[in-house]
Amino acid sequence: MSVNLPKLQVIKIGGNVIDNPPLLEAFLQDIASIKEPFVLVHGGGKIATEMAKELGITSQMIEGRRVTDTASLRIVTMVYAGWINKTMVAQLQSKQKNAIGFTGPDAGLVISKKRNPSPIDYGWVGDIEQVNGKALNGFINQGYYPIFAPITADKEGHLLNTNADTMAQAIAIALSEFFEVTLTYCFEKNGVLSNPDDDYSVIPHINQSSFLALKEGGIVTAGMIPKLENAIKAISQGVNTVKLCHASQVLIQEGGTRITA
Amino acid sequence: MSVNLPKLQVIKIGGNVIDNPPLLEAFLQDIASIKEPFVLVHGGGKIATEMAKELGITSQMIEGRRVTDTASLRIVTMVYAGWINKTMVAQLQSKQKNAIGFTGPDAGLVISKKRNPSPIDYGWVGDIEQVNGKALNGFINQGYYPIFAPITADKEGHLLNTNADTMAQAIAIALSEFFEVTLTYCFEKNGVLSNPDDDYSVIPHINQSSFLALKEGGIVTAGMIPKLENAIKAISQGVNTVKLCHASQVLIQEGGTRITA
Repeated sequence: MSVNLPKLQVIKIGGNVIDNPPLLEAFLQDIASIKEPFVLVHGGGKIATEMAKELGITSQMIEGRRVTDTASLRIVTMVYAGWINKTMVAQLQSKQKNAIGFTGPDAGLVISKKRNPSPIDYGWVGDIEQVNGKALNGFINQGYYPIFAPITADKEGHLLNTNADTMAQAIAIALSEFFEVTLTYCFEKNGVLSNPDDDYSVIPHINQSSFLALKEGGIVTAGMIPKLENAIKAISQGVNTVKLCHASQVLIQEGGTRITA
Repeated sequence: MSVNLPKLQVIKIGGNVIDNPPLLEAFLQDIASIKEPFVLVHGGGKIATEMAKELGITSQMIEGRRVTDTASLRIVTMVYAGWINKTMVAQLQSKQKNAIGFTGPDAGLVISKKRNPSPIDYGWVGDIEQVNGKALNGFINQGYYPIFAPITADKEGHLLNTNADTMAQAIAIALSEFFEVTLTYCFEKNGVLSNPDDDYSVIPHINQSSFLALKEGGIVTAGMIPKLENAIKAISQGVNTVKLCHASQVLIQEGGTRITA
Protein backbone atom coordinates (compact mmCIF):
# COMPACT_ATOMS: atom_id res chain seq x y z
CA MET A 1 0.00 0.00 0.00
CA SER A 2 1.35 3.37 -0.92
CA VAL A 3 1.55 6.33 1.41
CA ASN A 4 1.60 9.97 0.34
CA LEU A 5 1.83 9.14 -3.35
CA PRO A 6 -0.19 11.18 -5.84
CA LYS A 7 -3.40 9.59 -7.06
CA LEU A 8 -3.76 8.10 -10.55
CA GLN A 9 -6.53 6.20 -12.29
CA VAL A 10 -6.05 3.33 -14.71
CA ILE A 11 -9.32 2.84 -16.58
CA LYS A 12 -10.12 -0.06 -18.85
CA ILE A 13 -12.98 0.47 -21.28
CA GLY A 14 -14.53 -2.61 -22.83
CA GLY A 15 -15.52 -3.37 -26.39
CA ASN A 16 -19.26 -3.22 -25.72
CA VAL A 17 -18.88 0.43 -24.73
CA ILE A 18 -16.81 1.20 -27.81
CA ASP A 19 -19.57 -0.33 -29.93
CA ASN A 20 -22.13 2.05 -28.40
CA PRO A 21 -21.42 5.59 -29.71
CA PRO A 22 -23.62 7.57 -27.27
CA LEU A 23 -22.24 5.63 -24.28
CA LEU A 24 -18.67 6.07 -25.54
CA GLU A 25 -19.15 9.81 -26.09
CA ALA A 26 -20.56 10.23 -22.57
CA PHE A 27 -17.70 8.16 -21.19
CA LEU A 28 -15.06 10.30 -22.93
CA GLN A 29 -16.81 13.44 -21.68
CA ASP A 30 -16.70 12.01 -18.16
CA ILE A 31 -13.04 11.06 -18.17
CA ALA A 32 -12.06 14.39 -19.73
CA SER A 33 -13.36 15.98 -16.51
CA ILE A 34 -11.07 13.91 -14.25
CA LYS A 35 -8.63 16.24 -12.54
CA GLU A 36 -5.96 13.73 -11.55
CA PRO A 37 -3.78 11.88 -14.06
CA PHE A 38 -5.22 8.81 -15.76
CA VAL A 39 -4.25 6.06 -18.17
CA LEU A 40 -6.92 4.60 -20.45
CA VAL A 41 -6.70 1.07 -21.86
CA HIS A 42 -9.29 0.22 -24.48
CA GLY A 43 -10.47 -3.05 -25.91
CA GLY A 44 -11.63 -3.76 -29.40
CA GLY A 45 -15.30 -4.32 -29.85
CA LYS A 46 -17.12 -5.71 -32.80
CA ILE A 47 -15.39 -3.64 -35.50
CA ALA A 48 -12.47 -6.07 -35.87
CA THR A 49 -14.79 -9.06 -36.12
CA GLU A 50 -17.02 -7.29 -38.64
CA MET A 51 -14.05 -6.21 -40.75
CA ALA A 52 -12.60 -9.72 -40.73
CA LYS A 53 -15.97 -11.01 -41.88
CA GLU A 54 -16.17 -8.48 -44.71
CA LEU A 55 -12.66 -9.49 -45.81
CA GLY A 56 -13.65 -13.16 -45.68
CA ILE A 57 -11.36 -13.94 -42.72
CA THR A 58 -12.98 -16.18 -40.14
CA SER A 59 -11.92 -15.61 -36.55
CA GLN A 60 -11.44 -18.88 -34.73
CA MET A 61 -12.29 -18.61 -31.02
CA ILE A 62 -11.09 -21.00 -28.29
CA GLU A 63 -12.54 -20.53 -24.79
CA GLY A 64 -13.62 -16.97 -25.60
CA ARG A 65 -10.22 -15.97 -26.92
CA ARG A 66 -9.54 -15.16 -30.54
CA VAL A 67 -6.93 -17.25 -32.35
CA THR A 68 -4.76 -14.65 -34.03
CA ASP A 69 -3.39 -15.76 -37.38
CA THR A 70 -1.40 -13.31 -39.52
CA ALA A 71 -4.48 -11.90 -41.26
CA SER A 72 -6.27 -11.44 -37.92
CA LEU A 73 -3.21 -9.78 -36.35
CA ARG A 74 -3.20 -7.25 -39.15
CA ILE A 75 -6.89 -6.53 -38.64
CA VAL A 76 -6.75 -6.12 -34.86
CA THR A 77 -3.65 -3.92 -35.14
CA MET A 78 -5.38 -1.76 -37.73
CA VAL A 79 -8.67 -1.49 -35.85
CA TYR A 80 -7.37 -1.21 -32.26
CA ALA A 81 -4.13 0.76 -32.73
CA GLY A 82 -5.32 2.67 -35.80
CA TRP A 83 -9.00 3.52 -35.87
CA ILE A 84 -10.16 3.13 -32.24
CA ASN A 85 -7.02 4.52 -30.60
CA LYS A 86 -6.66 7.57 -32.82
CA THR A 87 -10.39 8.35 -32.73
CA MET A 88 -10.25 8.42 -28.92
CA VAL A 89 -7.03 10.44 -28.81
CA ALA A 90 -8.47 13.04 -31.20
CA GLN A 91 -11.72 13.20 -29.21
CA LEU A 92 -9.88 13.71 -25.91
CA GLN A 93 -7.61 16.35 -27.48
CA SER A 94 -10.73 18.23 -28.63
CA LYS A 95 -11.85 18.15 -24.98
CA GLN A 96 -8.55 19.76 -23.88
CA LYS A 97 -6.98 16.57 -22.54
CA ASN A 98 -3.43 16.09 -23.79
CA ALA A 99 -3.93 12.46 -24.82
CA ILE A 100 -1.21 10.37 -26.44
CA GLY A 101 -1.88 7.01 -28.07
CA PHE A 102 0.33 4.04 -27.31
CA THR A 103 0.78 0.39 -28.10
CA GLY A 104 3.34 -1.82 -26.35
CA PRO A 105 6.29 -1.13 -28.66
CA ASP A 106 5.88 2.67 -28.53
CA ALA A 107 8.69 4.01 -26.35
CA GLY A 108 9.31 0.37 -25.32
CA LEU A 109 6.50 0.68 -22.78
CA VAL A 110 5.13 -2.88 -22.73
CA ILE A 111 7.15 -5.92 -23.81
CA SER A 112 5.43 -9.22 -24.30
CA LYS A 113 6.26 -12.75 -25.35
CA LYS A 114 4.42 -14.90 -27.87
CA ARG A 115 2.30 -17.38 -25.98
CA ASN A 116 3.59 -20.94 -25.97
CA PRO A 117 1.76 -22.79 -28.78
CA SER A 118 1.26 -25.81 -26.51
CA PRO A 119 -1.29 -26.95 -25.36
CA ILE A 120 -3.36 -24.48 -27.44
CA ASP A 121 -1.84 -22.47 -30.27
CA TYR A 122 -3.45 -19.02 -30.06
CA GLY A 123 -1.20 -17.71 -32.84
CA TRP A 124 0.12 -14.14 -32.59
CA VAL A 125 -0.98 -13.60 -29.00
CA GLY A 126 1.33 -12.04 -26.45
CA ASP A 127 1.61 -12.38 -22.71
CA ILE A 128 3.05 -9.33 -20.99
CA GLU A 129 6.57 -9.73 -19.63
CA GLN A 130 7.44 -6.20 -18.61
CA VAL A 131 5.94 -2.72 -18.29
CA ASN A 132 8.39 0.19 -18.31
CA GLY A 133 6.72 2.07 -15.46
CA LYS A 134 9.52 4.62 -15.25
CA ALA A 135 9.11 5.74 -18.87
CA LEU A 136 5.31 5.74 -18.54
CA ASN A 137 5.57 7.78 -15.35
CA GLY A 138 7.75 10.23 -17.29
CA PHE A 139 4.97 10.86 -19.82
CA ILE A 140 2.38 11.22 -17.06
CA ASN A 141 4.57 13.71 -15.15
CA GLN A 142 4.79 15.82 -18.32
CA GLY A 143 0.99 16.10 -18.28
CA TYR A 144 0.19 13.54 -20.97
CA TYR A 145 -2.75 11.13 -20.73
CA PRO A 146 -1.67 7.78 -22.17
CA ILE A 147 -4.30 5.88 -24.18
CA PHE A 148 -3.31 2.24 -24.78
CA ALA A 149 -4.48 -0.09 -27.52
CA PRO A 150 -4.10 -3.77 -26.59
CA ILE A 151 -1.32 -4.54 -29.08
CA THR A 152 2.20 -5.28 -27.90
CA ALA A 153 5.40 -6.64 -29.44
CA ASP A 154 8.11 -9.05 -28.41
CA LYS A 155 11.81 -8.17 -28.35
CA GLU A 156 12.20 -9.43 -31.93
CA GLY A 157 9.65 -6.89 -33.18
CA HIS A 158 6.69 -9.22 -33.78
CA LEU A 159 3.39 -7.52 -33.05
CA LEU A 160 1.17 -9.51 -30.70
CA ASN A 161 -2.53 -9.33 -29.85
CA THR A 162 -2.84 -8.82 -26.10
CA ASN A 163 -5.68 -9.07 -23.62
CA ALA A 164 -6.74 -5.53 -22.69
CA ASP A 165 -7.85 -6.47 -19.15
CA THR A 166 -4.42 -7.94 -18.46
CA MET A 167 -2.71 -4.92 -20.00
CA ALA A 168 -4.65 -2.60 -17.67
CA GLN A 169 -3.71 -4.78 -14.69
CA ALA A 170 0.01 -4.89 -15.60
CA ILE A 171 0.11 -1.11 -16.17
CA ALA A 172 -1.72 -0.44 -12.88
CA ILE A 173 0.75 -2.64 -10.98
CA ALA A 174 3.79 -1.01 -12.63
CA LEU A 175 2.50 2.49 -11.84
CA SER A 176 1.75 1.66 -8.20
CA GLU A 177 5.44 2.32 -7.52
CA PHE A 178 4.80 5.99 -8.33
CA PHE A 179 1.11 6.53 -7.57
CA GLU A 180 -1.77 5.52 -5.39
CA VAL A 181 -3.55 3.70 -8.21
CA THR A 182 -7.26 3.09 -8.70
CA LEU A 183 -7.92 0.50 -11.41
CA THR A 184 -11.44 0.59 -12.84
CA TYR A 185 -12.83 -1.93 -15.31
CA CYS A 186 -15.65 -0.13 -17.11
CA PHE A 187 -18.10 -2.24 -19.05
CA GLU A 188 -21.78 -2.50 -19.98
CA LYS A 189 -22.91 -4.09 -16.69
CA ASN A 190 -23.37 -2.44 -13.30
CA GLY A 191 -20.70 -4.67 -11.77
CA VAL A 192 -20.30 -8.37 -11.11
CA LEU A 193 -23.85 -9.72 -10.94
CA SER A 194 -25.03 -12.57 -8.76
CA ASN A 195 -27.86 -13.08 -11.26
CA PRO A 196 -26.92 -12.24 -14.87
CA ASP A 197 -30.59 -11.53 -15.64
CA ASP A 198 -30.88 -8.95 -12.86
CA ASP A 199 -28.88 -5.78 -13.53
CA TYR A 200 -29.33 -4.74 -9.91
CA SER A 201 -27.87 -7.89 -8.37
CA VAL A 202 -24.43 -6.29 -8.07
CA ILE A 203 -22.05 -8.02 -5.67
CA PRO A 204 -20.57 -5.05 -3.77
CA HIS A 205 -17.33 -6.69 -2.59
CA ILE A 206 -15.27 -9.64 -3.80
CA ASN A 207 -12.02 -10.92 -2.35
CA GLN A 208 -9.81 -13.90 -3.18
CA SER A 209 -11.83 -16.40 -1.14
CA SER A 210 -15.28 -15.16 -2.15
CA PHE A 211 -14.11 -15.22 -5.78
CA LEU A 212 -13.24 -18.91 -5.46
CA ALA A 213 -16.66 -19.59 -3.94
CA LEU A 214 -18.41 -17.64 -6.72
CA LYS A 215 -16.45 -19.55 -9.32
CA GLU A 216 -17.13 -22.94 -7.76
CA GLY A 217 -20.80 -22.08 -7.39
CA GLY A 218 -21.00 -21.19 -11.08
CA ILE A 219 -22.13 -17.62 -10.22
CA VAL A 220 -19.30 -16.06 -12.22
CA THR A 221 -18.50 -17.73 -15.50
CA ALA A 222 -16.86 -17.33 -18.89
CA GLY A 223 -15.47 -13.85 -19.59
CA MET A 224 -15.89 -12.65 -16.00
CA ILE A 225 -13.42 -15.18 -14.56
CA PRO A 226 -10.24 -13.86 -16.25
CA LYS A 227 -11.40 -10.28 -15.55
CA LEU A 228 -11.71 -11.04 -11.84
CA GLU A 229 -8.39 -12.89 -11.85
CA ASN A 230 -6.78 -9.75 -13.27
CA ALA A 231 -8.52 -7.61 -10.65
CA ILE A 232 -7.40 -9.84 -7.77
CA LYS A 233 -3.83 -9.96 -9.03
CA ALA A 234 -3.79 -6.14 -9.21
CA ILE A 235 -5.01 -5.68 -5.63
CA SER A 236 -2.50 -8.25 -4.35
CA GLN A 237 0.42 -6.53 -6.10
CA GLY A 238 0.20 -2.95 -4.91
CA VAL A 239 -2.80 -1.39 -6.65
CA ASN A 240 -4.74 0.57 -4.04
CA THR A 241 -8.33 0.21 -5.28
CA VAL A 242 -9.85 -2.05 -7.93
CA LYS A 243 -13.45 -1.85 -9.07
CA LEU A 244 -15.69 -3.08 -11.88
CA CYS A 245 -18.59 -0.86 -12.89
CA HIS A 246 -20.77 0.41 -15.69
CA ALA A 247 -19.00 2.88 -18.01
CA SER A 248 -21.51 5.56 -16.97
CA GLN A 249 -20.34 5.20 -13.35
CA VAL A 250 -16.65 5.89 -13.96
CA LEU A 251 -16.76 9.15 -11.96
CA ILE A 252 -18.81 7.76 -9.10
CA GLN A 253 -17.12 6.52 -5.93
CA GLU A 254 -19.99 4.26 -4.88
CA GLY A 255 -21.56 1.49 -6.90
CA GLY A 256 -20.09 -1.36 -8.87
CA THR A 257 -18.08 -4.22 -7.46
CA ARG A 258 -15.07 -3.43 -5.27
CA ILE A 259 -12.21 -5.95 -5.12
CA THR A 260 -10.56 -6.28 -1.72
CA ALA A 261 -7.47 -8.18 -0.61
CA MET B 1 20.22 29.11 -41.16
CA SER B 2 21.05 27.77 -37.77
CA VAL B 3 24.45 28.04 -36.10
CA ASN B 4 25.77 25.65 -33.46
CA LEU B 5 22.52 23.72 -33.22
CA PRO B 6 22.65 19.93 -32.90
CA LYS B 7 21.95 17.98 -36.08
CA LEU B 8 18.69 16.17 -36.72
CA GLN B 9 17.30 14.28 -39.70
CA VAL B 10 13.69 14.30 -40.84
CA ILE B 11 13.21 11.39 -43.22
CA LYS B 12 10.15 10.77 -45.36
CA ILE B 13 9.72 7.24 -46.67
CA GLY B 14 7.37 6.76 -49.59
CA GLY B 15 4.67 4.18 -50.20
CA ASN B 16 6.59 2.38 -52.95
CA VAL B 17 9.30 1.54 -50.42
CA ILE B 18 6.76 0.35 -47.87
CA ASP B 19 5.32 -1.93 -50.55
CA ASN B 20 8.75 -3.55 -51.10
CA PRO B 21 9.60 -5.65 -47.99
CA PRO B 22 13.34 -6.26 -48.70
CA LEU B 23 13.88 -2.55 -49.50
CA LEU B 24 11.93 -1.52 -46.39
CA GLU B 25 13.89 -3.93 -44.16
CA ALA B 26 17.21 -2.61 -45.51
CA PHE B 27 15.98 0.96 -45.02
CA LEU B 28 15.01 0.33 -41.38
CA GLN B 29 18.38 -1.35 -40.79
CA ASP B 30 20.07 1.74 -42.26
CA ILE B 31 18.20 4.32 -40.23
CA ALA B 32 18.66 2.27 -37.04
CA SER B 33 22.39 2.92 -37.49
CA ILE B 34 21.99 6.72 -37.58
CA LYS B 35 23.73 8.19 -34.55
CA GLU B 36 22.02 11.58 -34.44
CA PRO B 37 18.32 12.04 -33.65
CA PHE B 38 15.83 11.52 -36.44
CA VAL B 39 12.12 11.78 -37.13
CA LEU B 40 10.56 9.40 -39.65
CA VAL B 41 7.39 10.23 -41.60
CA HIS B 42 5.92 7.40 -43.60
CA GLY B 43 3.40 7.28 -46.39
CA GLY B 44 0.87 4.64 -47.11
CA GLY B 45 1.52 2.41 -50.06
CA LYS B 46 -0.80 0.07 -51.82
CA ILE B 47 -2.16 -1.68 -48.72
CA ALA B 48 -4.88 0.92 -48.14
CA THR B 49 -5.98 0.81 -51.78
CA GLU B 50 -5.99 -2.99 -51.79
CA MET B 51 -7.93 -3.17 -48.56
CA ALA B 52 -10.50 -0.65 -49.83
CA LYS B 53 -10.89 -2.77 -52.95
CA GLU B 54 -11.40 -5.96 -50.92
CA LEU B 55 -14.03 -4.16 -48.85
CA GLY B 56 -15.73 -2.93 -52.00
CA ILE B 57 -14.88 0.72 -51.37
CA THR B 58 -13.72 2.55 -54.49
CA SER B 59 -11.15 5.30 -53.94
CA GLN B 60 -11.90 8.31 -56.07
CA MET B 61 -8.73 10.15 -57.15
CA ILE B 62 -8.58 13.79 -58.32
CA GLU B 63 -5.21 15.04 -59.65
CA GLY B 64 -3.37 12.20 -57.95
CA ARG B 65 -4.98 12.82 -54.59
CA ARG B 66 -7.38 10.45 -52.95
CA VAL B 67 -10.84 11.75 -52.12
CA THR B 68 -11.32 10.67 -48.53
CA ASP B 69 -14.90 9.77 -47.71
CA THR B 70 -15.75 8.36 -44.27
CA ALA B 71 -15.08 4.75 -45.28
CA SER B 72 -11.74 5.70 -46.85
CA LEU B 73 -10.73 7.75 -43.78
CA ARG B 74 -11.30 4.72 -41.61
CA ILE B 75 -9.17 2.57 -43.91
CA VAL B 76 -6.22 4.96 -44.18
CA THR B 77 -6.26 5.56 -40.42
CA MET B 78 -6.26 1.82 -39.80
CA VAL B 79 -3.56 1.02 -42.34
CA TYR B 80 -1.25 4.03 -41.83
CA ALA B 81 -1.61 4.67 -38.08
CA GLY B 82 -2.29 1.04 -37.16
CA TRP B 83 -0.53 -1.54 -39.26
CA ILE B 84 2.31 0.37 -40.98
CA ASN B 85 3.18 2.63 -38.06
CA LYS B 86 3.21 -0.07 -35.39
CA THR B 87 5.07 -2.54 -37.61
CA MET B 88 7.84 0.04 -38.11
CA VAL B 89 7.92 1.03 -34.44
CA ALA B 90 8.23 -2.61 -33.35
CA GLN B 91 10.94 -3.26 -35.96
CA LEU B 92 12.97 -0.24 -34.84
CA GLN B 93 12.55 -1.20 -31.18
CA SER B 94 13.94 -4.66 -32.01
CA LYS B 95 16.96 -2.84 -33.50
CA GLN B 96 17.50 -0.95 -30.21
CA LYS B 97 16.05 2.35 -31.40
CA ASN B 98 13.59 3.83 -28.94
CA ALA B 99 10.89 4.56 -31.52
CA ILE B 100 7.51 6.04 -30.65
CA GLY B 101 4.62 6.14 -33.09
CA PHE B 102 2.62 9.32 -33.56
CA THR B 103 -0.23 10.78 -35.52
CA GLY B 104 -1.15 14.47 -35.43
CA PRO B 105 -3.50 14.33 -32.43
CA ASP B 106 -1.05 12.40 -30.24
CA ALA B 107 0.31 14.85 -27.66
CA GLY B 108 -1.29 17.58 -29.80
CA LEU B 109 1.77 17.50 -32.08
CA VAL B 110 0.19 18.41 -35.44
CA ILE B 111 -3.07 20.28 -35.79
CA SER B 112 -4.73 20.51 -39.17
CA LYS B 113 -7.86 21.94 -40.72
CA LYS B 114 -10.29 20.22 -43.07
CA ARG B 115 -9.60 21.41 -46.58
CA ASN B 116 -12.13 23.84 -47.99
CA PRO B 117 -14.61 21.78 -50.07
CA SER B 118 -14.52 24.41 -52.80
CA PRO B 119 -13.44 24.23 -55.63
CA ILE B 120 -12.77 20.49 -55.15
CA ASP B 121 -14.19 18.52 -52.23
CA TYR B 122 -11.45 16.12 -51.16
CA GLY B 123 -13.51 14.96 -48.17
CA TRP B 124 -11.73 14.22 -44.89
CA VAL B 125 -8.41 15.72 -45.95
CA GLY B 126 -6.48 18.02 -43.66
CA ASP B 127 -4.05 20.84 -44.31
CA ILE B 128 -1.54 21.38 -41.53
CA GLU B 129 -2.05 24.51 -39.46
CA GLN B 130 0.43 24.04 -36.66
CA VAL B 131 3.24 21.75 -35.51
CA ASN B 132 4.05 21.79 -31.80
CA GLY B 133 7.83 21.84 -32.24
CA LYS B 134 8.44 22.41 -28.55
CA ALA B 135 6.62 19.23 -27.49
CA LEU B 136 8.22 17.25 -30.31
CA ASN B 137 11.65 18.56 -29.31
CA GLY B 138 10.89 17.40 -25.78
CA PHE B 139 10.41 13.80 -26.95
CA ILE B 140 13.58 13.94 -29.08
CA ASN B 141 15.61 15.32 -26.17
CA GLN B 142 14.46 12.37 -24.05
CA GLY B 143 16.01 10.04 -26.64
CA TYR B 144 12.85 8.99 -28.47
CA TYR B 145 12.67 8.57 -32.24
CA PRO B 146 9.26 9.82 -33.44
CA ILE B 147 7.65 7.84 -36.27
CA PHE B 148 4.73 9.72 -37.84
CA ALA B 149 1.81 8.31 -39.78
CA PRO B 150 0.19 10.89 -42.10
CA ILE B 151 -3.05 11.21 -40.17
CA THR B 152 -3.90 14.40 -38.29
CA ALA B 153 -6.96 15.89 -36.59
CA ASP B 154 -8.58 19.26 -36.38
CA LYS B 155 -9.35 21.06 -33.13
CA GLU B 156 -12.83 19.50 -33.07
CA GLY B 157 -11.35 16.00 -33.02
CA HIS B 158 -12.08 14.97 -36.62
CA LEU B 159 -9.38 12.72 -38.03
CA LEU B 160 -8.03 13.92 -41.37
CA ASN B 161 -5.98 12.24 -44.09
CA THR B 162 -2.85 14.32 -44.61
CA ASN B 163 -0.16 14.43 -47.27
CA ALA B 164 2.96 12.77 -45.86
CA ASP B 165 5.39 14.92 -47.88
CA THR B 166 3.80 18.05 -46.48
CA MET B 167 3.81 16.60 -42.97
CA ALA B 168 7.57 15.94 -43.24
CA GLN B 169 8.12 19.48 -44.51
CA ALA B 170 6.07 21.09 -41.72
CA ILE B 171 7.82 19.00 -39.05
CA ALA B 172 11.26 19.81 -40.49
CA ILE B 173 10.46 23.54 -40.48
CA ALA B 174 9.13 23.45 -36.90
CA LEU B 175 12.22 21.58 -35.65
CA SER B 176 14.65 23.94 -37.38
CA GLU B 177 14.20 26.24 -34.38
CA PHE B 178 15.98 23.62 -32.26
CA PHE B 179 18.18 21.70 -34.73
CA GLU B 180 20.22 21.96 -37.88
CA VAL B 181 17.73 19.90 -39.89
CA THR B 182 18.36 17.71 -42.92
CA LEU B 183 15.10 16.74 -44.65
CA THR B 184 15.38 13.70 -46.91
CA TYR B 185 12.61 12.45 -49.17
CA CYS B 186 13.37 8.74 -49.74
CA PHE B 187 11.60 7.03 -52.59
CA GLU B 188 12.09 4.40 -55.29
CA LYS B 189 13.95 6.69 -57.73
CA ASN B 190 17.57 7.88 -57.54
CA GLY B 191 16.42 11.51 -57.34
CA VAL B 192 14.59 13.92 -59.61
CA LEU B 193 15.20 12.59 -63.11
CA SER B 194 15.55 14.71 -66.25
CA ASN B 195 14.43 11.64 -68.23
CA PRO B 196 11.96 9.40 -66.39
CA ASP B 197 13.12 6.40 -68.46
CA ASP B 198 16.75 6.86 -67.43
CA ASP B 199 17.42 6.07 -63.77
CA TYR B 200 20.83 7.75 -64.01
CA SER B 201 19.57 11.11 -65.29
CA VAL B 202 19.50 12.55 -61.77
CA ILE B 203 19.37 16.33 -61.59
CA PRO B 204 21.96 17.07 -58.86
CA HIS B 205 20.70 20.50 -57.78
CA ILE B 206 17.37 22.28 -58.03
CA ASN B 207 16.51 25.74 -56.76
CA GLN B 208 13.38 27.88 -56.99
CA SER B 209 14.12 29.24 -60.45
CA SER B 210 15.35 25.97 -61.98
CA PHE B 211 12.24 24.27 -60.53
CA LEU B 212 10.01 26.72 -62.39
CA ALA B 213 11.95 26.06 -65.60
CA LEU B 214 11.68 22.28 -65.11
CA LYS B 215 7.97 22.60 -64.49
CA GLU B 216 7.37 24.83 -67.51
CA GLY B 217 9.48 22.53 -69.67
CA GLY B 218 7.38 19.56 -68.61
CA ILE B 219 10.48 17.81 -67.20
CA VAL B 220 8.92 17.39 -63.77
CA THR B 221 5.27 16.47 -63.73
CA ALA B 222 2.45 14.96 -61.71
CA GLY B 223 3.48 13.67 -58.28
CA MET B 224 6.94 15.25 -58.39
CA ILE B 225 5.64 18.83 -58.50
CA PRO B 226 4.03 18.93 -55.02
CA LYS B 227 7.03 17.02 -53.62
CA LEU B 228 9.42 19.68 -54.97
CA GLU B 229 7.14 22.47 -53.79
CA ASN B 230 7.36 20.99 -50.29
CA ALA B 231 11.15 20.71 -50.59
CA ILE B 232 11.54 24.33 -51.73
CA LYS B 233 9.25 25.63 -48.99
CA ALA B 234 11.35 23.73 -46.42
CA ILE B 235 14.66 25.18 -47.61
CA SER B 236 13.20 28.69 -47.72
CA GLN B 237 11.87 28.41 -44.15
CA GLY B 238 14.92 27.40 -42.14
CA VAL B 239 15.62 23.76 -42.99
CA ASN B 240 19.38 23.44 -43.54
CA THR B 241 19.55 20.70 -46.19
CA VAL B 242 16.84 19.12 -48.35
CA LYS B 243 17.42 16.18 -50.65
CA LEU B 244 15.47 13.60 -52.61
CA CYS B 245 17.07 10.19 -53.09
CA HIS B 246 16.55 6.46 -53.36
CA ALA B 247 15.68 4.79 -50.04
CA SER B 248 18.90 2.77 -50.27
CA GLN B 249 20.89 6.02 -50.27
CA VAL B 250 19.53 7.44 -47.01
CA LEU B 251 22.93 7.17 -45.28
CA ILE B 252 24.93 8.53 -48.19
CA GLN B 253 25.93 12.20 -48.31
CA GLU B 254 26.38 12.32 -52.09
CA GLY B 255 23.86 11.33 -54.72
CA GLY B 256 20.24 12.22 -55.21
CA THR B 257 18.88 15.68 -55.86
CA ARG B 258 19.85 18.51 -53.53
CA ILE B 259 17.47 21.47 -53.13
CA THR B 260 19.16 24.84 -52.74
CA ALA B 261 17.77 28.25 -51.92
